[in-house]
Parts: sequence; structure tokens; C-alpha cells
Amino acid sequence: MKKLVLTGAAGRLGSYLREPLTQMCEELVSTDIAEDIGTLYPGERYEKGDLASLDDMMRILEGADMVVHFGAFVDEGPFEQLLGPNFIGAYNVWEAAHQRGLRRVVYASSIHAVGMYPKNECIDTEVRHRPDTFYGLAKCFAEDLGSMYWDKRGLESVHLRILSCAQVNNARALGSWLSYDDLIQLVQRSIDTPVSGFSIVYGVSNNDRAPVDNAKASFLGYRPKDNAEQFAEQVLAETGPLDNQDPGHMCHGGPFASVDLGQSGLAGMNVIDDAKKT
Amino acid sequence: MKKLVLTGAAGRLGSYLREPLTQMCEELVSTDIAEDIGTLYPGERYEKGDLASLDDMMRILEGADMVVHFGAFVDEGPFEQLLGPNFIGAYNVWEAAHQRGLRRVVYASSIHAVGMYPKNECIDTEVRHRPDTFYGLAKCFAEDLGSMYWDKRGLESVHLRILSCAQVNNARALGSWLSYDDLIQLVQRSIDTPVSGFSIVYGVSNNDRAPVDNAKASFLGYRPKDNAEQFAEQVLAETGPLDNQDPGHMCHGGPFASVDLGQSGLAGMNVIDDAKKT
Amino acid sequence: MKKLVLTGAAGRLGSYLREPLTQMCEELVSTDIAEDIGTLYPGERYEKGDLASLDDMMRILEGADMVVHFGAFVDEGPFEQLLGPNFIGAYNVWEAAHQRGLRRVVYASSIHAVGMYPKNECIDTEVRHRPDTFYGLAKCFAEDLGSMYWDKRGLESVHLRILSCAQVNNARALGSWLSYDDLIQLVQRSIDTPVSGFSIVYGVSNNDRAPVDNAKASFLGYRPKDNAEQFAEQVLAETGPLDNQDPGHMCHGGPFASVDLGQSGLAGMNVIDDAKKT
Amino acid sequence: MKKLVLTGAAGRLGSYLREPLTQMCEELVSTDIAEDIGTLYPGERYEKGDLASLDDMMRILEGADMVVHFGAFVDEGPFEQLLGPNFIGAYNVWEAAHQRGLRRVVYASSIHAVGMYPKNECIDTEVRHRPDTFYGLAKCFAEDLGSMYWDKRGLESVHLRILSCAQVNNARALGSWLSYDDLIQLVQRSIDTPVSGFSIVYGVSNNDRAPVDNAKASFLGYRPKDNAEQFAEQVLAETGPLDNQDPGHMCHGGPFASVDLGQSGLAGMNVIDDAKKT
Amino acid sequence: MKKLVLTGAAGRLGSYLREPLTQMCEELVSTDIAEDIGTLYPGERYEKGDLASLDDMMRILEGADMVVHFGAFVDEGPFEQLLGPNFIGAYNVWEAAHQRGLRRVVYASSIHAVGMYPKNECIDTEVRHRPDTFYGLAKCFAEDLGSMYWDKRGLESVHLRILSCAQVNNARALGSWLSYDDLIQLVQRSIDTPVSGFSIVYGVSNNDRAPVDNAKASFLGYRPKDNAEQFAEQVLAETGPLDNQDPGHMCHGGPFASVDLGQSGLAGMNVIDDAKKT
Amino acid sequence: MKKLVLTGAAGRLGSYLREPLTQMCEELVSTDIAEDIGTLYPGERYEKGDLASLDDMMRILEGADMVVHFGAFVDEGPFEQLLGPNFIGAYNVWEAAHQRGLRRVVYASSIHAVGMYPKNECIDTEVRHRPDTFYGLAKCFAEDLGSMYWDKRGLESVHLRILSCAQVNNARALGSWLSYDDLIQLVQRSIDTPVSGFSIVYGVSNNDRAPVDNAKASFLGYRPKDNAEQFAEQVLAETGPLDNQDPGHMCHGGPFASVDLGQSGLAGMNVIDDAKKT
Repeated sequence: MKKLVLTGAAGRLGSYLREPLTQMCEELVSTDIAEDIGTLYPGERYEKGDLASLDDMMRILEGADMVVHFGAFVDEGPFEQLLGPNFIGAYNVWEAAHQRGLRRVVYASSIHAVGMYPKNECIDTEVRHRPDTFYGLAKCFAEDLGSMYWDKRGLESVHLRILSCAQVNNARALGSWLSYDDLIQLVQRSIDTPVSGFSIVYGVSNNDRAPVDNAKASFLGYRPKDNAEQFAEQVLAETGPLDNQDPGHMCHGGPFASVDLGQSGLAGMNVIDDAKKT
Repeated sequence: MKKLVLTGAAGRLGSYLREPLTQMCEELVSTDIAEDIGTLYPGERYEKGDLASLDDMMRILEGADMVVHFGAFVDEGPFEQLLGPNFIGAYNVWEAAHQRGLRRVVYASSIHAVGMYPKNECIDTEVRHRPDTFYGLAKCFAEDLGSMYWDKRGLESVHLRILSCAQVNNARALGSWLSYDDLIQLVQRSIDTPVSGFSIVYGVSNNDRAPVDNAKASFLGYRPKDNAEQFAEQVLAETGPLDNQDPGHMCHGGPFASVDLGQSGLAGMNVIDDAKKT
Repeated sequence: MKKLVLTGAAGRLGSYLREPLTQMCEELVSTDIAEDIGTLYPGERYEKGDLASLDDMMRILEGADMVVHFGAFVDEGPFEQLLGPNFIGAYNVWEAAHQRGLRRVVYASSIHAVGMYPKNECIDTEVRHRPDTFYGLAKCFAEDLGSMYWDKRGLESVHLRILSCAQVNNARALGSWLSYDDLIQLVQRSIDTPVSGFSIVYGVSNNDRAPVDNAKASFLGYRPKDNAEQFAEQVLAETGPLDNQDPGHMCHGGPFASVDLGQSGLAGMNVIDDAKKT
Repeated sequence: MKKLVLTGAAGRLGSYLREPLTQMCEELVSTDIAEDIGTLYPGERYEKGDLASLDDMMRILEGADMVVHFGAFVDEGPFEQLLGPNFIGAYNVWEAAHQRGLRRVVYASSIHAVGMYPKNECIDTEVRHRPDTFYGLAKCFAEDLGSMYWDKRGLESVHLRILSCAQVNNARALGSWLSYDDLIQLVQRSIDTPVSGFSIVYGVSNNDRAPVDNAKASFLGYRPKDNAEQFAEQVLAETGPLDNQDPGHMCHGGPFASVDLGQSGLAGMNVIDDAKKT
Repeated sequence: MKKLVLTGAAGRLGSYLREPLTQMCEELVSTDIAEDIGTLYPGERYEKGDLASLDDMMRILEGADMVVHFGAFVDEGPFEQLLGPNFIGAYNVWEAAHQRGLRRVVYASSIHAVGMYPKNECIDTEVRHRPDTFYGLAKCFAEDLGSMYWDKRGLESVHLRILSCAQVNNARALGSWLSYDDLIQLVQRSIDTPVSGFSIVYGVSNNDRAPVDNAKASFLGYRPKDNAEQFAEQVLAETGPLDNQDPGHMCHGGPFASVDLGQSGLAGMNVIDDAKKT
Repeated sequence: MKKLVLTGAAGRLGSYLREPLTQMCEELVSTDIAEDIGTLYPGERYEKGDLASLDDMMRILEGADMVVHFGAFVDEGPFEQLLGPNFIGAYNVWEAAHQRGLRRVVYASSIHAVGMYPKNECIDTEVRHRPDTFYGLAKCFAEDLGSMYWDKRGLESVHLRILSCAQVNNARALGSWLSYDDLIQLVQRSIDTPVSGFSIVYGVSNNDRAPVDNAKASFLGYRPKDNAEQFAEQVLAETGPLDNQDPGHMCHGGPFASVDLGQSGLAGMNVIDDAKKT
């Protein structure tokens, strides 16, 4: 591959992907809304861009083969706050990818697109959407967008429904953890699979308690290696009894499933601590 | 019911609903972006409002029990054109409905949310989204929005995936036709069903060739009476051989399934004749 | 058919079946725990018997071809109260039927075997049990019993999951009503079908709002004729807004789905008015 | 349509189709292995041909738009006997249809392609094959052939799995009957549907006891009018108790499901009376 | 966890659980109908109790957090024999658990709840019940009971459908074996999972030939380590040809699937050797 | 086992099976159409035979317990060329196996029976047939044949849908590879499983990218050990961009899915290089 683009390169997950992605292409163009992202890796170039600007995306995707789209506002917030980066941003990436003739979008979707399913109901990659937040709603939007661009324009996309990619410090994470190594493998498989069409896959490590089923995406070859069970004893010891009538404990979406949308809807930023994020 | 709101009251389908809806409530508030909609029916009041304005929706929905949301840009167009009325508009209606304490949104969704399925694959109300256009993508968005507001806030919604509600003058319409009388019945059932939760139902008459399955929404009690087969002989006589490699003929979405998004995406309005619309 | 047995002949539904059943056999033996059931129909004989007594069942089923088993305690009550007539009674009927060489049991099962499913989720005849009461639990028991006697001993059974067979005076009944005529047809089909194996079918009229799906039992030939929609206008006019967080309004089981088991479990009889039964 | 071909025109079902098919085209070419088929209808031409000869099929299908393929050996027999007309014959029809550029094959498939399913298990049009005889096995073969020619060559086909098309004189026929009028409607719909792709539909009348589900083929618009229930009282009165361990009574295939293949396999013609045939 | 109760502590499986369970709580109360169970482990207390007595269960469960319910008559027997310990006993445990405010019941269910499915049909945890014995019927009863107490009262339960937990000395056990270590892990996961709702999971080791699918219960984190394949060579060498028309060899339930209920039904104890037990 | 028969013993896959199969029986009779197959293994006997001759099969299967049927024309070709060895040959093997009282046929079926499914749609062992070639059509035929002989005559069969068993030198093979060791294990499991009924299983190694799901055949105990991922880096480096509109790259059947049947149909042998073969 000649040119690969990574959006959200200044973000937490994006930062972890930069180095490995340089190994998969001649030139990695990292982009984000920040002025710069510090020292670059060999083969990497940084180009500032705003997801909410189609012109920016058109410029940055020119000549690229694929785009790894991780750029977004990465927390729940009022719809107005997510509209630009998460909704319009996704449209701009797909539309620019199409116009620039890219082959594939690899997209950081999220469990929050289906976060309202009860956790003791294992979900596969074909269940209908049940978003738990505006954040999850934006992921649903991008998945449907990807479906349409594949059906109508032959632009491929792989949608990585990441469960949680952060320190394992709560009971939910014993099932939902995606290690950085497994994240990297997942992105690599999504890139190197020769043909993908429109595909959805859960981003989760090989946890004993992983509550989702990737069988229908098996052709991708994603085989996670890490297992959060190593943290189980300590985490469970620190976990008090949980309220099983609270969607935050019973649903796939975790805290996002119980957050009060009424608060987030119009009243500004809804700060949720790091470990609860995607 | 005391107060019922109808959006899109100046539109083709909205116009047909005004009179019947006045029979179901003490006061029908019709709204649209037009200055006025002509003579009002007894019990009807008109209030101008812009779907893209949350303030307008907050004002108009105040004190209402339910809203019948038919307002939208009703054709395929560039994403930019649909963003305001169809995406943000839907958000505004649901958010205002929530804040104003309404019980239910009855929404004009569309077959175009799943238009890319082949027509010889009968689809039920639980298949995943496969939109055929930006127009269909907006319907997907509103369905997911409705799912979230029900799961998180207890706001009910019934999503009417209308197949086609226009003159039967082509072969597809023999299966997809929704008569005006059946449209009215469908909206009535969606309103008078005592509890609905989040529900999806196809809007189609009792056509011999109806290609969709409403079994899973049976509790609504929608039993269409009309049948497009009365037009079959004439329509088929005028239909030349159709290209079965063309999604416009093989898919549920009909012409929308084969329209070139590349053209509509950035190049302005894509005029499609009336009979092809939802 | 020579001899047919009807249990629960003194009950409300049993009373309606006596006359029609005499038309289907040379001798109808009606049985119940009462001393007598009044005037008998031509071809009918009454024999007192206690379901909780295997000896009684052995005596009464001797020489019979089939048994229509409608006898039970027909309301929710403490487990202790239902144990005899509904659990042990069902065992006695099946075991006696087996030992006496009967061909088939036609059983009055109930929607309450699956009453905890939400009503806007149409259920077919293969969903797993979700009983809403001890009453429903006893129906689950008898269905599983019937499955086993068919698989192991070749004793057929048809399980009629009756939704509600009473006056249509509430919103739920618009969907759940089973008219007496349709009940009779349902029992007749269950008897005259030449082979039945183990089968489950919902007992509901041809209501516009029927929330269940009998497609998988189509071979039985049950085609209900009545439709509760005739009562819709009046019933809905008298129905106030319903709480959609109450299982009694959102679930198939209706009032049984929201009844407090804690009360019924040990504290004696839980009186529910007639229209809420079965 | 200019030219339509009917194979098996001298057969029982073929004979019924000749006249109606002349109404659907400018020229109907009827073909069979017989020397002639008596008086022709206006617009009909007879051409003798052997299904087992590709040359014959190439000649007869030249210039045709569609072929209604009902020609076959229509009873169970040794594999050797069915090989020519039913297997090779089907191949010849599809291959010639492809080479001659026809649009569609309408094929008389049979319930015997899935005859080993128990009758109290309602089957839809997507279950895997479970043939009950060599006759049924040939139907499986032709369905798979049709699937391949559609997927690889764009040649459409509609496969009519006829249950039984004969006098209603046994209990099975109460469910399986296909009246001649409904047969004609079924063939007409299969011809006049503008696009069909590869489709399967059960050929059965609107019988109360019909044990199959055509929901997935609804786009075809087949709505049978006749109902074998009119014969139920008399037929059931004459039906003795049936052995529910006999596949001939418990399975969809009826007598074919219990016929001893060991006898038919090598020992020559297996004569089954008329009413038992497809 | 403060107090954990184990029923059936004197039984074969119960005995293996006592020591590991003491590691999971401050106090383990072991109970059974025996006078004593020998030397106790540190942290263990024994309390005699009869499952058939609600008073006993109320007394023993007082103050407990969870109960591991393994007490039952553990063989096939006449219904009368199982009624007390297996049916009424299960009711008493759930009702007392509810009244005493426990969080969860971990229950020794069994493959015999679904034993009549053919073994070459892999079954998941959502198939409908198909019990093979009265023993299995009691397991169905307790599963339905657990479903109801969760739906109605928020009492959680995990139902362990144990396949066979005994020496691997026959061909069936190559697939059905549950090692003691894996049994212990399974019970541990069912206890330490923070929320469980109502869940079903198969109790089987990581056997190459395991014929069941636990994917839908993946959130529990049960990952068995042992594999009966180590015994395959020897066991298969000693296995003569098996009759594939015998449910005892073709069905999941093994010998229980072919046992003659007619014998067990009324004639007293049906002794089956140890290896055939659950 | 006393006598085991292997057909296609001179073929590529057959050759690999000869030695291992001699370990599983007292006498292995290898057969093929060749005059001889070189040096025999201890316990092996060679007997020339033509699959297209029932007499040959009757002679060779006499006294055998099972037959491993790998003989066939192993490439796509005109229907006429496959008719003898692949269609009639399969019939002869099953019919002779039945007449000679064998217990089981282990059959080399192929992914090409379902080759037209898109690769990003993971397929299980119950999907309907979608053959990609005449070669695949013959596999469909034999599977249906096996289903019938099991349902009607109790003759077991295990159908191994081999994906590709050859050097891993293209991208598809990273998912489809079946190593020789895993092939041998698969055949062994199919032979030593005590009862099999009619079963289908995919023949594929434990590849990270394996695109099929064997969960429903888990009772067989097939657990492949090899993994084509070891070849991924090199193979992918040599793979240019693939056309995702080409069924040869998007479908399970690989090159067979895009081969022009029109060419193979009548014009003689269609040579495909070795690595593309089953």
C-alpha cells in the first residue's frame, strides 16, 4: 500500500496506532484537529484537518488507498456537540473516500451502537441497532453510511465495534477489554484482508467473559491474544454488589447505558471518567 | 386525546392526514414551514414552524400528547440538503417531545431505510438497515433515535416504513402501493394502540404482491384493505422487459436503489418524478 | 370416535365445549370435581373425578380415544394451591392416558406460559417459556410433560395457549380475545386432525390486533372467524392512558404479568376478576 | 411475450395449463414425447421433443422468452428410470434456455424435495432439502441447477413446489391440495412477475390445513382462492385412525415418505395410485 | 460474600464443591437430608434440612447471599418419588431465597431437560425444552421457575445444564464429560459474575466432541480446561457398534433418552448405573 | 472395524488417506479406475473399479463396514463429463452401500456446493445449497442423496465440505486451507464417531481466517490443528489489489465462483490449475 490515512491521530487510540500503521504502507498520513502531534515516526507525515470540513478531507485523502477513521468526539455529549465531528465528520470521510477513489474505510465504531442489549444476551454482528447515547447513535449512523456506500458505490468498510480499550479497573471491563495489542491486530486484519465488502466486527480481546460473538466476521482472521481474566481476582474483590436493575450494570453499553440523556441532551458536556469511555 | 401535532402538514401525505386526524383529538395542530396551508378543518389549528429549529418544536409540541411526524425533505438530495430537515429535524422532534413530556412519536419512515435488499427476499421488521440513498439514511437515523429515546427515556415511537404512496403506474407499485385509506388506517392504529414501545411496521396495502412481512408488528392491528392487483393487468401490459441486474428493478427501494449517489452527493438537487417517491 | 373425555366440564370454558363435543363422538364423558353438572346433552355422561387422583383418572379414561383436558384451578394462587389440580392433575391425566392407550390429549394451556414477553414482540409457538405466574408455570409444566410423552411414548398432544376467553372489556382483549365459537373450532381441529404429534397453538380469534403467530401450527387448520375489532371503538374510548412501564400493559400476560407474586406466593388466594383470567 | 414453451404438455398438469398459457403469449409451443396431443388451442403449436436430448431442447427453445417446464417422469421409480427425463432433462432445459437467451424457467418442483420434514413442522421456502424419493431427489437437483444458472448466468427461475394436485380423497390432501385454478394462477404469477431471480414457492391452495409457508415468496403475488376444507367432513369421516409413527402420515411427503426405496431402487417401476402423486 | 448455602452437600457432586466454595465466602452452610456429612472444612457449617420443607429452607437461607442448589433425587424415578425433592424442593428453595432476600440461585440443571434432541443437532441455550425423563422434567420446571422469579421478583439464577459428571467409560461421555475441576470453575463463575439475570449454560468440559453450544452464555466467562479426548482411543476400542435408531445412542440424553418411562412411571425406582447419571 | 473401502484411492487426496486408513481397520480395500496404485500398505488391498458401474460397487463394498468415498472427476467440466463419475457414481456408492448393509458413507463433498455465498457472510452447515459449478452441483446431489438414504434407510453419511486442500499460494487459501494432517483427522473422526446420522462438516484447518462455522457439527469432535496464518505475510505481500466485484474474490467458491459456465458447459474440459481445485 502506498498511502494510508489515519484520522484522530492525536487521540488516545489513534496514538497507539500510528507506529504500527507506518509498517503497513509507504506513507502514513496522520491527521487530527491539533496543530501538531509531536515527533513523527519514520514514514509518517502529519496534516492538520477538520473532520467537519469536506474540503479538508478531500485534500488529505487524495491519493490514499485506505483511511483508518478514528477521529471523533470520544465521549457522550449533547447532540449539537457530536453533530459536527461524529456525524458530518463521518459523512465527509466516506464521501471524500469515494470521490478520491479509496478502496476501504476502517472505522472505529463502538459497542454503544448496540449498548442497550442486556449483557446476558450474547449479541452477534447482525443484531439491529440499539444505541445507548448520542455517541452510540453517531456510530449507528456511520455503520449505515458504510452499508450504503458499499451497496451503491463499492466502497468497502470494516466497522470495529470497540467494547472498551482502557485499563481494566471495573467488573464490566473483564468482559469488554480490548488490549492495545489486540486493537492493533484488529486494525491490521481489517487492512490486510484482500476483500472486505461491508463488515462489522467486535473489538474485544480474548477475554473469558467477552459477551459478544464475532463468528459471522470470521473471514477477517481477527484472533485476539490477551485476556482480562488476569485482572479478575483483584477487580472482583473490589467490586461491591451491583444493582441488576441498572442498565449500567446489566447492559452491554455499561455506564453509557444508564447515563441520563436528559442531562446530556441540552445542558452541555457530560464528563465521564476515562475508564468508562469506549 | 387533547392535543395532537402533525408535522409536514403541507406535504402530499400530510394533507391527506389532516382531516382524519382531527377526528382523533380535541385539537390538531398542523405545522409546516409554509406560511399557511389554506382552509382549516374543524378542530385544526395551523402553526408555522421550522423542523430545523429546536425552539420551534419546543413551542409547538407544548401540551401535546403525541406527534405525527411526516415533515421532511421528501426526495433524494445531497446530504447537505437533507441534514437540516431530515436529520436535525428528527432530533428536534424527539428531543422536544421528550422535554415536553409527550407519550409517542408516529414517524413516516420509509422502505428506503432497507431499500438495498433484493425484492425476492421478503423482509420483516427486524432486518438490519440497508439504506439506498441519503434519504433512506435519514430514515435509519430516526429509527435508531426512536429506539434510544424509548430505551433511555420511555418515549414511545411507531416507525411507518412506507413503501410507496402514489399512483400505481409501474410494476414495482403493484407490490409497494399504500393507498390513502390504508395510510390513514395505519396512522390511526399507531395512535390508538394503548402502548407501543418502539415499533416498526411496513406501510403497504393488502397487495397480492406485497414484498414485506408485518407479522412481528401484529399487535398494532394494521389490516390494510386495498389491493393494487386491480391495476396489474394494465400496468403489466405497459411494462417492457426489465433488467434484472439493475437494483432499481430487483431491490425493494426501486428507482432509489439504482440512483447514482455520486451525482446526488455534491451536485445539487436530484429530481425524481413523483411516482418514484416514498 | 367412540369415547371422548372432557375434564373441567363444570368450568366456564368446559361448559361451552360440552355440547359441541357430543357431536364428535359416540359418547362424551364429562368429568369434574363437582357432584353433578346439571342436565346432560344427548350422548353425554357425567362422572365425578378428582384430577389429583390417578385412580380417578385411570377409571375415567378407560376405553377413551382422546381426552380434552380443561380441568384446573383457573386463577393465580399460591403454589401450594395449584400443586394438586394443575401440576399433579396434569401428570395424572397424561399418565392415565398413556396407560389406557389413548391417542391424544388436547390441553388448555395458556398465554401465561409465555406471559412475560413484551406485547410488541410477536411470539410464535417455538419461543422458550417465560411464565408470568404460578398458574403459567403449571402450563409450562404440562407442555413439557406433553413433549416427553410424545417423544418417549408416542402419546400425542395439542396445547392450546388460550390468550383470553371472556368479554372484551379492556384494551388488551382487543388483541387477546378468543370467542367461544373460535374456541370450539380450535378444539374441533385439535381433535379431528388425523395426526398431531406434539403441537402448540395459540388460542386467539382473528383479531386485527392479535399479538401472536400461529404460522408454525398451520397444519392444524385453525382459522378463527371472529374479530374483536368490533369492540375497539368503545373499549378504547373508555381506556385511559396506560403505563407502558407496567408489564401488565406491555406484556402478553396482561394483568398476570404485573401481579405481585410475593402476595400470591404464600398469602392465599389472589382474586382477579373474571376478564383477566386465562 | 412472443413465444412461450410448455414441456410435459401431454401430462395431466400440462394439459390443464395449455389453454391458459395461450392467453399469455403470441405463440405457445407445447412439447412432449408423444406424437401429438390432440386438438390445439388457438395460438398453440405442438412440437415433439425428448427432454433427454439437448438438441431437441435447443431446437424447441429457440426464440422463446420463457419455458414452463413440467415434463418429467411423474412417479417414483428406480433412479435409472428417472435419470434421463428428470435429471438430464432438467439440465437440458436450463442449458438450452441459457444458450438460447431465455429470460426464465418456471419449473414444476415438488414437495417431495422436502418431503421428509414432519408435517407438524411448518416449512418455509428456505429449509434445506430433505427428499423422500428419487423423484424428490430430481426436484432437489433442478432447484440447485436453477440456483446456479441464476447466480452464474443471470437465468431466472421460479420453482413451484407442488404439494398435490389431484382429487381430495384422503386426509393429507386437506392440507396439500392445489386446485387447478390455483395452479393456473401460480404459473401466471410466475410468468408475469417482472423480475424473479431465483425463487421457490409452494404450490398449494388456500387450504385451512396448508402445512407450508410462502411468506418469503410474497413478492410473486400468488394468492390461492380454493380451500380443501369443503371436503373435510366427508374425507375425515372415511379416514380411520392413522399410524403416527409412519412417515407416510406424519411427513409432508405423504405416501412417498414411507415408500420403501429398497423396492423401487432396482426392481423397476413403483406404481403408486394417482391421488398419491405430486 | 458473607454467607453461601450449598444444598445436596452430601451428594456426589455436592461433596466436590464443599471445599472450593469455602474459599468464596466467609461462611459456607452445607445442607442435606443426612444427619451429618463428616469432617467439615474451615469456614463450613452443616445444617440438616429437608428440601421438601419450606420452613427448613427459610431457616437455612436466612442471611445468605446466594444458594448453590444441588440437592435432588439424582436418578430417574417415578413422578411420585421426584415430586417432593425435585419439584417442591426447587419451589421451596426459590421461594425461600426470595423471601430471605438472596441475590442469586446457582442451580444444578441437566442436559436431561433437553435430552430428546438428536446429538448430531448441536443445541444452544435457547432451544425449547425436550425432557427425556421425569428427572429431566423436574429440571425444566426449575428453569421455568427461575425465569419467573427473575422476571417478576428480580431474583437471579444461573442454570447449569450438566451433561455428565462421572468417569469417562462410554462413547457418549467423550462428548458429555464434565470434569470435577471444570465443574468447580463453572460454579465459581456463576457465583462471581457480578450480574447474571436469568441464564442457562451447559456444564461440559472442553471436549473435542462436546455436542452443545455455550456461545450465548459467554458473558459468564466459563472456559473449561479438561478434554475427554484423552480417553477416546481406549473407550472407542471397547465400544461395539451402536444402534443408531436407539435414542439412547442418538440423543443428547443418552441412556435416559431410551429408558422405558412406562416402567419407571408407576413401578418404583428405576436403577441406572452411576455412569449414566447426569 | 473389519473392512473399510476407499474410493478415489489413486487421486491426490485419496493417496494421503491410504496409510492412515489402514490403521483404522483390519482390511482397507482401495479402489480407483486405474489398473494399480503402486506399492500397497500393510493391510491394504487394491481392487480396480468404475464408479459408474453399480456392479463394480456392489462387488467391492461386499462385507465392508464403511466406505470413504473420495472418487470423482475433481475439476469443473461439462455436465456430460461429470455425469458418470460424480452423479451416477455417487448413486452407485450409496445404493451399493445400502444393499450391502454398510453402516456409513464418509463423503468428500466440497465448499463448491455453497460456493456462491459471499465470503464475508460466514456460513454454517445448514444454509441452503448455492453451487458455483457443475462440480459443486454434483456435491449438492450427493448431499441430498445422503440425506434421503439416512431418512429412508438408516444409512449414515458424513459429508466433508472441503474448502481447499493444496499449497497455500493465494489469499483465499489463507482462509480455506485444509492441511493433510487435518484432513486425516477429519476423516478419522467421521469414521470413529459411534453414531453420525446425516451430518455435514466443513473441511478446513484452524485458520485464523476460516470463513465457515462448524459449530453445528461439534459432536464429531473435529478440532483442526494447523493454521494457514503462517503463510499470510508472504502470500499477502504477493497479492495485488483484488476486484471486489468479482465473485472469484468475494465468494466462498473462489475461482470456481467466477468461472464462465458458458465455456465449460458444452465446450469440453475447463482446465484450472491445481491450487484452485477443491
